[in-house]
Amino acid sequence: MAFEKTMDKVVALAKNRGFVYPGSDIYGGLANTWDYGPIGVELKNNVKKAWWKKFVHENEHNVGIDCAILMNSEVWVASGHVGNFTDPLMDCKECKSRFRADKLVEEHMTAKGIEKASADGWSNEKLKKYIDDNNIVCPSCGKKNFTDIRQFNLMFKTFQGVTEDSKSEIYLRPETAQGIFVNFKNVQRTSRKKIPFGIAQIGKAFRNEITPGNFTFRTREFEQMELEFFCKPGSDLEWHSYWKDYCWKFLLDLGITEENIRFRDHDKEELSHYSNATSDIEYLFPFGWGELWGIADRTDYDLTQHQNHSGKDMTYMDPITKEKYIPYCIEPSVGADRAVLAFLVDAYDEEELEGGDVRTVLHFNPVIAPFKAAVLCLSKKLSEKSLEVYNMLKKDFNVDYDDAGSIGKRYRREDEIGTPYCITVDFDTMKDNTVTIRDRDTMEQFRIKIEELKGFIEEKIKF
Amino acid sequence: MAFEKTMDKVVALAKNRGFVYPGSDIYGGLANTWDYGPIGVELKNNVKKAWWKKFVHENEHNVGIDCAILMNSEVWVASGHVGNFTDPLMDCKECKSRFRADKLVEEHMTAKGIEKASADGWSNEKLKKYIDDNNIVCPSCGKKNFTDIRQFNLMFKTFQGVTEDSKSEIYLRPETAQGIFVNFKNVQRTSRKKIPFGIAQIGKAFRNEITPGNFTFRTREFEQMELEFFCKPGSDLEWHSYWKDYCWKFLLDLGITEENIRFRDHDKEELSHYSNATSDIEYLFPFGWGELWGIADRTDYDLTQHQNHSGKDMTYMDPITKEKYIPYCIEPSVGADRAVLAFLVDAYDEEELEGGDVRTVLHFNPVIAPFKAAVLCLSKKLSEKSLEVYNMLKKDFNVDYDDAGSIGKRYRREDEIGTPYCITVDFDTMKDNTVTIRDRDTMEQFRIKIEELKGFIEEKIKF
Repeated sequence: MAFEKTMDKVVALAKNRGFVYPGSDIYGGLANTWDYGPIGVELKNNVKKAWWKKFVHENEHNVGIDCAILMNSEVWVASGHVGNFTDPLMDCKECKSRFRADKLVEEHMTAKGIEKASADGWSNEKLKKYIDDNNIVCPSCGKKNFTDIRQFNLMFKTFQGVTEDSKSEIYLRPETAQGIFVNFKNVQRTSRKKIPFGIAQIGKAFRNEITPGNFTFRTREFEQMELEFFCKPGSDLEWHSYWKDYCWKFLLDLGITEENIRFRDHDKEELSHYSNATSDIEYLFPFGWGELWGIADRTDYDLTQHQNHSGKDMTYMDPITKEKYIPYCIEPSVGADRAVLAFLVDAYDEEELEGGDVRTVLHFNPVIAPFKAAVLCLSKKLSEKSLEVYNMLKKDFNVDYDDAGSIGKRYRREDEIGTPYCITVDFDTMKDNTVTIRDRDTMEQFRIKIEELKGFIEEKIKF
Repeated sequence: MAFEKTMDKVVALAKNRGFVYPGSDIYGGLANTWDYGPIGVELKNNVKKAWWKKFVHENEHNVGIDCAILMNSEVWVASGHVGNFTDPLMDCKECKSRFRADKLVEEHMTAKGIEKASADGWSNEKLKKYIDDNNIVCPSCGKKNFTDIRQFNLMFKTFQGVTEDSKSEIYLRPETAQGIFVNFKNVQRTSRKKIPFGIAQIGKAFRNEITPGNFTFRTREFEQMELEFFCKPGSDLEWHSYWKDYCWKFLLDLGITEENIRFRDHDKEELSHYSNATSDIEYLFPFGWGELWGIADRTDYDLTQHQNHSGKDMTYMDPITKEKYIPYCIEPSVGADRAVLAFLVDAYDEEELEGGDVRTVLHFNPVIAPFKAAVLCLSKKLSEKSLEVYNMLKKDFNVDYDDAGSIGKRYRREDEIGTPYCITVDFDTMKDNTVTIRDRDTMEQFRIKIEELKGFIEEKIKF
């Protein structure tokens, strides 16, 4: 059935079924913060678990780490975030709205039909000149009376210790990557890993963006799943290509529709000065293509910065050739919240049923489905048996239990949260110890022995 | 063997083997922040996974949630944190050291031999009078020239949006509990749970303590594993007792030595005014008994506060009796970092071997052990076979691989990170497809078929 997949529909479902609620909801929220509800937290945990399995446990090269969010400010001086992690902002003096000057320019370019609309890396002067030359007006009030453009740092600032003097000023990390770089030597020494090897981390990061939006796509508080993969200089482009394929395969293995993802390679003007290559995997959201995964060849930039700034040796010595060098680094970095949003949007479907009813269904891969199965009890007389099946299964899987309403309604509810299998305990169960399994996607039903249920589900969530 | 278990030994092992490094290490650290290394992150993830399994997936009453760290400030006004989450601090005018006045008083009481040394809830005046009357001097310089006592709020403050005016002032959450309370209605509505039910959350919280310390026991940034269990008023003491038993059993099931934990019930003077009962589970660390798990009966205090402050109805209607009430709440709350520290300390052991050598070994329950097994390759000629076993096992478990050094040295290395089973591929393996398993605790060895390895490990990590 052709239907329109809109963000409004996905967001409404997310709020109604316990995937995602607005943060601080009863107090009117807090600018684009979101809380994962009972169904959403399971989905997100499953995505994180799948990532950790493929990028840490199963990959012979990699190990994990979990660093503090609060770091010594020198880290952010060395990384360049204190100096350069800024947005060019300006205010409309008439209506007091605040804008990112580069975004205003880019929107103007796009409206004019310029294909690669980018003001990346433009100076404030260049931005101002473009705005003046093209007579760009305030998108809110239509007037043209802007303040000068000023650079605002995107890091959240806080104060450690109990006074608010500048000495104790620290930042909430704007990315998880630097925790890995500053621990490069610690990890190498204690894990005795040899180049090439990678260090992976999942954790929260914070960016004080002026324009968060598109539901959980861009938020000030977000979670990253990041790998820094260290290799020998010269082998970096090969590894860049290896990780591009690896990330792409990860998404496909978890059921992303291949037509909805694409690579976008950064061209030379867009590349950071230190980067040899950067490719994004983009997903086709209802609001357009959006960056999901950035896979960047960062050369030896980060380790060199930290070596220079800390005075600590960041070189690696090849144990066989005795060659010493600062490793190059490939960084595949994906937002956990964005990945979850992509899986949610991708799974969303509306199907017209016989008789004209429409069912909303989330076709999650069982690996990431919040519930692996739901046990449905057909009659109060069957409660004991149903609970027996439920209690047996939840030793191994996250399983739902539902004994309220018609079976049809219960199927719909489970469809809407993406439960792949509904297990119905009925009167035949009492005779032959079998149950009915109903498949979410095909809606087909078949009977199976209770003792085979565990193996059946296990097989479906192999990953 | 009798040996002295000290924090110094545990901390040294943790740093050398990749459990925990000082945060921002290459920049001289940042006041008691810590990063979990490759071994530590696995241990911590396993503890969190075990908690989620027992408190969410396996418990029919509970569901999970994952809320934003940044919340609307009104949450902290309602909860009382803006007004009352403070420490009484004073400075020594001579040497500029800063102290918690209540701690100074309590230390003085303890030194005098007073058994229940507590200045909890004392006013600044009462604290000052005690300090004056007892002639308490500065512990740093020995002089007696203190400033007045002032109340400092323990919440980390930051600024949302791009300007630093007070309107956009927000806090890093000092606890995960309030995210649950403000979502009580959202969760109840979307999960259709009936009282009694609980909402569980794992996440970071931040407290600007003046005296963090004892390694990861008290840190400004820490992770909580928290359950808020809502029940009918009057049934709360029964549920309080249920959760006390549940938490105690959780620790024992994961291998904590029973002699090293104890309950400490808060007596009437110590109880918060709204609490009907509070019990801590304490662990005997090398530095003394320390709080691990707090299990508090918070009555209807939190939901009532939010109902009054937000104007939103927080009552629950019993679907059968149609009775309306604000549920009572039992809060079992444990620090993930503290739990990990307790398991680490508890597992630490030094054993004298035949011949007089000493081995350091961590007797983790296999459920939480960072690696479930290590594959050891006896000779370069056996690499292919060894890697085959390794690659097979790491599809299902986190498994180490080691082909360097003598077998004895490799056993010691795995003992020190608590790997329960070492699997050695030797020349007999090539003949009969069996390997040697060496048990970490008994050091006994036996042969097993390769195809039985998976089942063997699975059996050991059932939980």
